[in-house]
Amino acid sequence: MSNASSDARSRPADVAAILVEALPYIRRFAGSIVVVKFGGAALAGSTDPEAALASFAEDVALLRSVGLAPVVVHGGGPQIEELLARLGISSQFQDGHRVTDAETLEIARMVLVGKVNSEIVAAINVHGALAVGLSGFDANLLQVGLRDEQLGYVGNVDAVNPSLLHGLLAQGLIPVVATMGSDLGGQAYNVNADAVAGALAGSLKATRLVMLTDVDGVRSDPADVGSTIPRLRADELDAMVTAGTATGGMVPKARACVAAVRAGVEAAHLLDGTVAHAVLLELFTDSGVGTMVTA
Amino acid sequence: MSNASSDARSRPADVAAILVEALPYIRRFAGSIVVVKFGGAALAGSTDPEAALASFAEDVALLRSVGLAPVVVHGGGPQIEELLARLGISSQFQDGHRVTDAETLEIARMVLVGKVNSEIVAAINVHGALAVGLSGFDANLLQVGLRDEQLGYVGNVDAVNPSLLHGLLAQGLIPVVATMGSDLGGQAYNVNADAVAGALAGSLKATRLVMLTDVDGVRSDPADVGSTIPRLRADELDAMVTAGTATGGMVPKARACVAAVRAGVEAAHLLDGTVAHAVLLELFTDSGVGTMVTA
Amino acid sequence: MSNASSDARSRPADVAAILVEALPYIRRFAGSIVVVKFGGAALAGSTDPEAALASFAEDVALLRSVGLAPVVVHGGGPQIEELLARLGISSQFQDGHRVTDAETLEIARMVLVGKVNSEIVAAINVHGALAVGLSGFDANLLQVGLRDEQLGYVGNVDAVNPSLLHGLLAQGLIPVVATMGSDLGGQAYNVNADAVAGALAGSLKATRLVMLTDVDGVRSDPADVGSTIPRLRADELDAMVTAGTATGGMVPKARACVAAVRAGVEAAHLLDGTVAHAVLLELFTDSGVGTMVTA
Amino acid sequence: MSNASSDARSRPADVAAILVEALPYIRRFAGSIVVVKFGGAALAGSTDPEAALASFAEDVALLRSVGLAPVVVHGGGPQIEELLARLGISSQFQDGHRVTDAETLEIARMVLVGKVNSEIVAAINVHGALAVGLSGFDANLLQVGLRDEQLGYVGNVDAVNPSLLHGLLAQGLIPVVATMGSDLGGQAYNVNADAVAGALAGSLKATRLVMLTDVDGVRSDPADVGSTIPRLRADELDAMVTAGTATGGMVPKARACVAAVRAGVEAAHLLDGTVAHAVLLELFTDSGVGTMVTA
Amino acid sequence: MSNASSDARSRPADVAAILVEALPYIRRFAGSIVVVKFGGAALAGSTDPEAALASFAEDVALLRSVGLAPVVVHGGGPQIEELLARLGISSQFQDGHRVTDAETLEIARMVLVGKVNSEIVAAINVHGALAVGLSGFDANLLQVGLRDEQLGYVGNVDAVNPSLLHGLLAQGLIPVVATMGSDLGGQAYNVNADAVAGALAGSLKATRLVMLTDVDGVRSDPADVGSTIPRLRADELDAMVTAGTATGGMVPKARACVAAVRAGVEAAHLLDGTVAHAVLLELFTDSGVGTMVTA
Amino acid sequence: MSNASSDARSRPADVAAILVEALPYIRRFAGSIVVVKFGGAALAGSTDPEAALASFAEDVALLRSVGLAPVVVHGGGPQIEELLARLGISSQFQDGHRVTDAETLEIARMVLVGKVNSEIVAAINVHGALAVGLSGFDANLLQVGLRDEQLGYVGNVDAVNPSLLHGLLAQGLIPVVATMGSDLGGQAYNVNADAVAGALAGSLKATRLVMLTDVDGVRSDPADVGSTIPRLRADELDAMVTAGTATGGMVPKARACVAAVRAGVEAAHLLDGTVAHAVLLELFTDSGVGTMVTA
Repeated sequence: MSNASSDARSRPADVAAILVEALPYIRRFAGSIVVVKFGGAALAGSTDPEAALASFAEDVALLRSVGLAPVVVHGGGPQIEELLARLGISSQFQDGHRVTDAETLEIARMVLVGKVNSEIVAAINVHGALAVGLSGFDANLLQVGLRDEQLGYVGNVDAVNPSLLHGLLAQGLIPVVATMGSDLGGQAYNVNADAVAGALAGSLKATRLVMLTDVDGVRSDPADVGSTIPRLRADELDAMVTAGTATGGMVPKARACVAAVRAGVEAAHLLDGTVAHAVLLELFTDSGVGTMVTA
Repeated sequence: MSNASSDARSRPADVAAILVEALPYIRRFAGSIVVVKFGGAALAGSTDPEAALASFAEDVALLRSVGLAPVVVHGGGPQIEELLARLGISSQFQDGHRVTDAETLEIARMVLVGKVNSEIVAAINVHGALAVGLSGFDANLLQVGLRDEQLGYVGNVDAVNPSLLHGLLAQGLIPVVATMGSDLGGQAYNVNADAVAGALAGSLKATRLVMLTDVDGVRSDPADVGSTIPRLRADELDAMVTAGTATGGMVPKARACVAAVRAGVEAAHLLDGTVAHAVLLELFTDSGVGTMVTA
Repeated sequence: MSNASSDARSRPADVAAILVEALPYIRRFAGSIVVVKFGGAALAGSTDPEAALASFAEDVALLRSVGLAPVVVHGGGPQIEELLARLGISSQFQDGHRVTDAETLEIARMVLVGKVNSEIVAAINVHGALAVGLSGFDANLLQVGLRDEQLGYVGNVDAVNPSLLHGLLAQGLIPVVATMGSDLGGQAYNVNADAVAGALAGSLKATRLVMLTDVDGVRSDPADVGSTIPRLRADELDAMVTAGTATGGMVPKARACVAAVRAGVEAAHLLDGTVAHAVLLELFTDSGVGTMVTA
Repeated sequence: MSNASSDARSRPADVAAILVEALPYIRRFAGSIVVVKFGGAALAGSTDPEAALASFAEDVALLRSVGLAPVVVHGGGPQIEELLARLGISSQFQDGHRVTDAETLEIARMVLVGKVNSEIVAAINVHGALAVGLSGFDANLLQVGLRDEQLGYVGNVDAVNPSLLHGLLAQGLIPVVATMGSDLGGQAYNVNADAVAGALAGSLKATRLVMLTDVDGVRSDPADVGSTIPRLRADELDAMVTAGTATGGMVPKARACVAAVRAGVEAAHLLDGTVAHAVLLELFTDSGVGTMVTA
Repeated sequence: MSNASSDARSRPADVAAILVEALPYIRRFAGSIVVVKFGGAALAGSTDPEAALASFAEDVALLRSVGLAPVVVHGGGPQIEELLARLGISSQFQDGHRVTDAETLEIARMVLVGKVNSEIVAAINVHGALAVGLSGFDANLLQVGLRDEQLGYVGNVDAVNPSLLHGLLAQGLIPVVATMGSDLGGQAYNVNADAVAGALAGSLKATRLVMLTDVDGVRSDPADVGSTIPRLRADELDAMVTAGTATGGMVPKARACVAAVRAGVEAAHLLDGTVAHAVLLELFTDSGVGTMVTA
Repeated sequence: MSNASSDARSRPADVAAILVEALPYIRRFAGSIVVVKFGGAALAGSTDPEAALASFAEDVALLRSVGLAPVVVHGGGPQIEELLARLGISSQFQDGHRVTDAETLEIARMVLVGKVNSEIVAAINVHGALAVGLSGFDANLLQVGLRDEQLGYVGNVDAVNPSLLHGLLAQGLIPVVATMGSDLGGQAYNVNADAVAGALAGSLKATRLVMLTDVDGVRSDPADVGSTIPRLRADELDAMVTAGTATGGMVPKARACVAAVRAGVEAAHLLDGTVAHAVLLELFTDSGVGTMVTA
């Protein structure tokens, strides 16, 4: 049940100290909803994607086993790109968003819902009958609206209908959400996964939002590994986005964190998902491994 | 809310007669689970697939609105064939089953889970936040085993874990199940949709199993439209399969009906799904529109 | 289970159309309380009173079978008259009300509670253990006050104590209420059945009040069968009573409808109870068979 | 709240002794169903029928107020006789049973359900919204069968359907049952009230059956007031009936007691209902005021 | 189960009168919380302490048996004095309070919790598994603060945390509370039992507070047995304390009664606990045996 | 919230490994009842009794905080001895049991219930309103019988009535049980604490019984510290007692473990309670710190 090295603990006193430190956190988070955004990049870009997925899946299963209620949100840009390439379809990008026509949208749905989502569900279900794959279409979980006509079927989250998630959580299940949805007329859209994670965390009144990225948090100087900021207020992070200190892929993540915290989420975390068991270390120890954003 | 022609009812007495006939059926089926198998062929091969899907979706939503608990099961052979063709992959068939290697399996999963399932969910959800798309992977709904090594990743249903479905039905939701699943080691398989529908109906202790096909039931002479048999016992149908009177695509459907009835399902129905509102007519009127199989 | 003529339905498409039209109404009214006033005149004056009672009883049982919660209210003037005549007692009338002394009151109670009520209960219970006969005395359901000293023991409803009805409805039973009651000192009174039906509908927060009469609704010209008004607002009906357009037995019915709608009942219906299955046709089809009164 | 004479208690020690004696009985009977048969003779034949009814009603209300669940059963032979006489109808008797034709049955129903039952309900409801009048027709409480063709519509209890009573008791209400009922075809019958009381007590698994009569229990010599037997076994009472020691009106009462005790009722009591508060004295003190029958 | 003399009741009518008087009180108090303060003096100073304890215990068990929810509060001054004497420890008193150092406190705790409390629990549990011994330490029932530095570990009740008591009462158990408690830092204190009884009654929203003393209530002239006042308002009692009419041990009792009534307790009673079954006589008869204090 | 040294963890990977190891145990034990016997010797004989009690109390509070249901059982021999000495009372011993007369019993009860129990409750309640002090008298938790007339009031557990404990556990409270109790006649007895712990564990269907001693488990050679046996079957331990390999204070502990396991407890643990956080280390890590006894 453990893949940890056996030499990790030399002395009972050390083990006791770690347990005495961790147990109050476990108590505090019992029953809490934690929304975890797992990036498609982590799966596609890791040196050992299978191991990364397995480690992530184990963490999620362990969170649930000690009474937390995790909800997983994921995208899948690289995997969509791969199938488009095999089918000889090329995309245009505008401001970092893929211009999405009807054919591209259908490909994206097949990949997100029929491939990435299924793989995450399968990885978690190695630990039991736990995960259920969903998308924003299911029970109209996400109501989406057009973002920008020039981008095609790329949408914003207009509303969240979380009752399906509450029902599954009440059964002890782990929802895994692919980030597509439809508008009131039934038209489907692709949606940015960071934004969906933030909106779901707010709507679910989650205790925590955890964004797994491939950097170790928000840096005061993006190029300086040593400049990671352990703790930030939402308004400070907002100012960094406005000032351009946070750039690139960090911008939608930062915005999702700020939105979630402002919607009542206790704290949002930006972590390096490539560190093994990063979620456990962040939630259950005094010192963290990324940036924590609070109101 | 109605797409019925307004001249359908000339006299109040006729309307009253139909209501007086239908209401006791509605009462009898209130709270009953009805598993409906909707064929991929119906979607792909209809002259107006969108209208066929919309009519089916309206029936399912109406069943639920008057207190039944429908569960939809579907396959998607033609749609899988189409994407395989686009990707230049050709399949071999053996005894009517597609020999399925790892690549074909991944394509099939994307199509079944990411396309056909999503389209059925979307069609139902035009009527409200009702349907939830699932596959056999979700909460390990279907435990599948290898059928025949020469067929590759084609499986049989070894066990059903229906608690996820019961949970969703208790929330008033309509599960829509894509017929794939995995074995205990996590290996995925494609499974025959007729067989899954029969196994789910038996496991759920459904009141009825409804198989929508493109013929109007079991015929004593397959070539003779007029020879449809309105009512059969399971052992009679079993004998017809053994004797070769039922052939082709009717064989797995017949076997699923027999299995379901023997597992305690009150009756199984084989209907022509291309007749508008066939499900309502079969369940809510004295005379049926297909073949009913009972113990 | 059906007394409808079998030639009522020639084509499946017609039947499907009627079902598709009716099912949403059945859904909408599921769980709704519907108070139905059944006139003693209907029983006493019909050409075939037994058939009229049986048709009414079947409708009430069918309403309940598809999830509605019917409450029946009835009077019994003609039946009281008959026993008084047998006993050689003659009554005086004043403004259409029978002057009621102690002996007349005892006769009226025996007839309403011990004869008419029991017959309606028995007719419904042919369909199962459904109906429970009550009067305003039971659990002090109706608190009644003196209306006019010159009329004797004729009362007005001062208050309704509906908890007994809620308890029986929660058990799936159909209360059948004879319209007598007592004041705080225990003195019994006879009460107008239309007024009781309106007061109960308001107190129960019923969804609908249905008044079965022997005309087909409110007419703009009482003498003109073709002048029935399909839909009226409560203030319009009120004005018709004030203006004298509605007269005779329609006046207390109109007042009860107006009172019920003003107390929060969604709509009140005035129907010709001699049309077979009038209640079903009014509640479950787009077009009605009488006058509907709304706020 | 008390009509007891104030000089009843001279010394606190006496009062304390009575309370200390009574409280354990109150505890033991809390939540217990007690079926009380109240004879029509008591109402019709008492020197002060109103006072007798009021005292009985107070006892029933007090029983309920301290947590018992009383069910009242009554007949009404003298009152039926009176109305028959007024209408000029004479009855024939056979073995002590009134030969009952259709007209007599209708008269009996009006009197039992519409007069005697209503008066008992009204007398109890002076103490609050407590009593609900019922007959065997309500929710098919009593299923009755023909006793003897020569007696006409006189029936035996074939089955009891007690769910209506359980529902009302759960609401804290007191059912008052008039002893008529119908067969499966809906034909009504009059039934002996002692037999109904015994059958209801058995079906309800009542703790006690109390038969209020106008003698002080079973006597070893019917003519000797001093020969009342305080305690009897069911088989002893059975033997007295067979031997003819118990005669006349005592026979059906004795049979009902024996039947109830054999159906699981803890004990049946035969009391003189003309003693004020006889029910309280019998249930709540060590010494009784009648005959107690046990298994 | 009764220790009452059997000659207490000569005539059934007297017994009936007492029952008819008592039953409405039993009904009114069903489910009510009654806090009973039982003085250590009663145990230590009675001529027959065992009999006094047994009579008290029987009353408490009887109260519970008829649906009340008694809570017992006790002190134990004389018993503490006894053990201190055996250990050769002498106490100083200041304004009637024992100056309590750490050693005295430990002795007091052993006596109150380990002796007096256990004896009361044992006396009640002769009647069944009813009583549970508690002190203010359990689940932090009483939060206590220093009263006066010169008195040492003598405290005032700062707050009550009644959820433990509610939990035990919901299980049908009788809490017996020894009047010690601790402050937020865990320091233990002895607390005046009258004050605890008043505070618990207020916090529990008890219906009644009963203070058992060795006098028969509040007297207008403390030296005159005949001057007991049957009924007082809280402000009148308050004035008597201020005016010095109530003196000595009556002062804390009076203050506790006034505080309880002002906190919402319906009435507080001051009774002579040496009268057998004083609690029953006070609660269940029209006339009382002490002083009743109301708002 | 932690008193662990901060240098306990050098590398995140080590911490992650310990968490990954511990979390499945926490999951497995969630909702489990764990009976912990805490020896009076540990309190009296430790070099730093206050620290030992505080560490034990923290462990118990942490167990509860992560969802376990701990029940504490304790004796107090040394503390009883101390008070007896102060009062100048000397005891005789027979086969290791103190001969207990009435006076000694009263002293023992004051010490166990009024001193040791209160101190453990207070130590736990530093962490919240958690612990409730009990003895076998409360709600007749322990029914005790005479062991041996020559020993006086020393008893055996004849029966356990655990409903009080279940009620408190359901409220999230921690029962702390002093090991005295009474027989059916109300006579109190002192009982061996090891035996009570075993009996309670069996009666509660506890998952685990943890006996805290001052040695590190069962040794194959009592004199050889290195001979501790990590895991034993109940029959093996039984044989060691019979063979005399287990001696002295280990004998009653061994018997209690064997009895508990045979009554359905999953495992019993014998641990050195002087190791800080021994309970956490034993329950939440792969390797243990004492002897585990299973069926």
